[in-house]
Amino acid sequence: MTEAAPSAAEPRLGTVAIIGAGQVGTMLGCALVGAGATASIDEVTLFDRDASVARESLSHGAGHRVLARQLEALEADTVILAAPVPAIVELVDELGPQLGPGTALIDTGSAKRAVVDAMRRSVPASVHAIGGHPMAGTERPGPGGARLGALRDATFVLTPFRPDPEALSRGRAVVRAVGASPLEIDADLHDRVVARTSHLPHVMAFALASVDLGAGTRDIAGALTSTGYLSATRLAGSDPDMVAGFLTANSTEVRGALHDLLDALTRLGAALEQGPHVLAELLRAHS
Amino acid sequence: MTEAAPSAAEPRLGTVAIIGAGQVGTMLGCALVGAGATASIDEVTLFDRDASVARESLSHGAGHRVLARQLEALEADTVILAAPVPAIVELVDELGPQLGPGTALIDTGSAKRAVVDAMRRSVPASVHAIGGHPMAGTERPGPGGARLGALRDATFVLTPFRPDPEALSRGRAVVRAVGASPLEIDADLHDRVVARTSHLPHVMAFALASVDLGAGTRDIAGALTSTGYLSATRLAGSDPDMVAGFLTANSTEVRGALHDLLDALTRLGAALEQGPHVLAELLRAHS
Repeated sequence: MTEAAPSAAEPRLGTVAIIGAGQVGTMLGCALVGAGATASIDEVTLFDRDASVARESLSHGAGHRVLARQLEALEADTVILAAPVPAIVELVDELGPQLGPGTALIDTGSAKRAVVDAMRRSVPASVHAIGGHPMAGTERPGPGGARLGALRDATFVLTPFRPDPEALSRGRAVVRAVGASPLEIDADLHDRVVARTSHLPHVMAFALASVDLGAGTRDIAGALTSTGYLSATRLAGSDPDMVAGFLTANSTEVRGALHDLLDALTRLGAALEQGPHVLAELLRAHS
Repeated sequence: MTEAAPSAAEPRLGTVAIIGAGQVGTMLGCALVGAGATASIDEVTLFDRDASVARESLSHGAGHRVLARQLEALEADTVILAAPVPAIVELVDELGPQLGPGTALIDTGSAKRAVVDAMRRSVPASVHAIGGHPMAGTERPGPGGARLGALRDATFVLTPFRPDPEALSRGRAVVRAVGASPLEIDADLHDRVVARTSHLPHVMAFALASVDLGAGTRDIAGALTSTGYLSATRLAGSDPDMVAGFLTANSTEVRGALHDLLDALTRLGAALEQGPHVLAELLRAHS
């Protein structure tokens, strides 16, 4: 418990520093600024290694001020890491040992095993660290891609990795402050399911977007693009660095999911040769 | 030209019979009933081999009355075939030879080569036949899946297959009557592009929907289902018979598209092993 905690049930978030002011950081920052004192938040600060991104995020209302140096974030009561997963892992290893006792640390990466492993090895037990993954957002990168209200009632996964009730309590307070619903699960279980419900759909969207429509089709492709195609390729608009980050950080599960998908596509391809009745039966089993 | 055509520019559609009263037939029927006299339509009749489907379509306002027997459709000035592609091919071969001189015949299938081949072999030259494909609709089967207004400004492909200006003129009149935009292209070109922009996304959606999330995940899978997953699997809600119909009718192009997709997925899987930077570069090339 921090000294300033108003009650056992609701810990103070105090000053909140967000490192990484892209779409996810901006979305969280806007929600936290909006929550303000009702969530015991004194101030929200923003840092991004690209200062212009931090300023843009600030202009969207995602914080009260921009930090000039990353190390200033160490002074906050609550530190939120909102970057591609490999960058989160680096930040945990770099900043973790320097965090003061009683500080809360949470991240937003969509692969959790790599992050909590880094927290376990680099963050002192006196720091209340927990993995986090807000299941909301858009495929548009950068502060301008943040959609207000996206977190409202969204699932916000929390992955505790060592016995620390205060870490869980502070994590829940962050989730409540942004209006989301906490789901506490093991990092491995998260990574297995999300590989199939989120990471694989990203791989598919980029793969479909890469399929050439053929010579001489440029003029008509737009007119022949169905809403189904737009849905199926929407995620290919996502930030390639973010996507590459979570795919490689969760590569074992993604590889398994991709294997299952290739199997299913191969089975459908084989049924295609057997006529509409056989194929319809296979499709029916999948719908 | 029919005897009743009011002008050279705008042929009469007269009485219109729709065979197949599912989602597509209902969508067209509602638009044609709405257009009515302004599109020189005297009456819209509906037939479906499942009489309850035809009655349901009628209750949505997709026609003025239901035909008791399919052969009654032969009396119409304009006949529209709205069924899965293999059923359209059968209808063309069965009804085509019985159509009277001056009748207009158009279909709605999303694979066109098989349909225009049937039209060429089975429909007398005195009948104004043309392939058609309204690029609109939803993934919900049956009359209840029809969305009013879906055709407004949608692309409606017309695939002429023999010199017959009147067939094109009547086809365009149907397209205008439902509020869509005509696109006249060769059946083969249509099939090549649509294999990639529509048929392949359907295959992918069914394949993704079939990927097992793993044991013990049932309770949490819903909470971990991203909007990206819902977008990517939406088309798996489509009528399996309709989907199997167009996939098998367009199997050569679908096979080619599937091959390209498997290639792209395999390349992405290989890049996954090479770390986030290599993978991000590949994703960037696809986004």
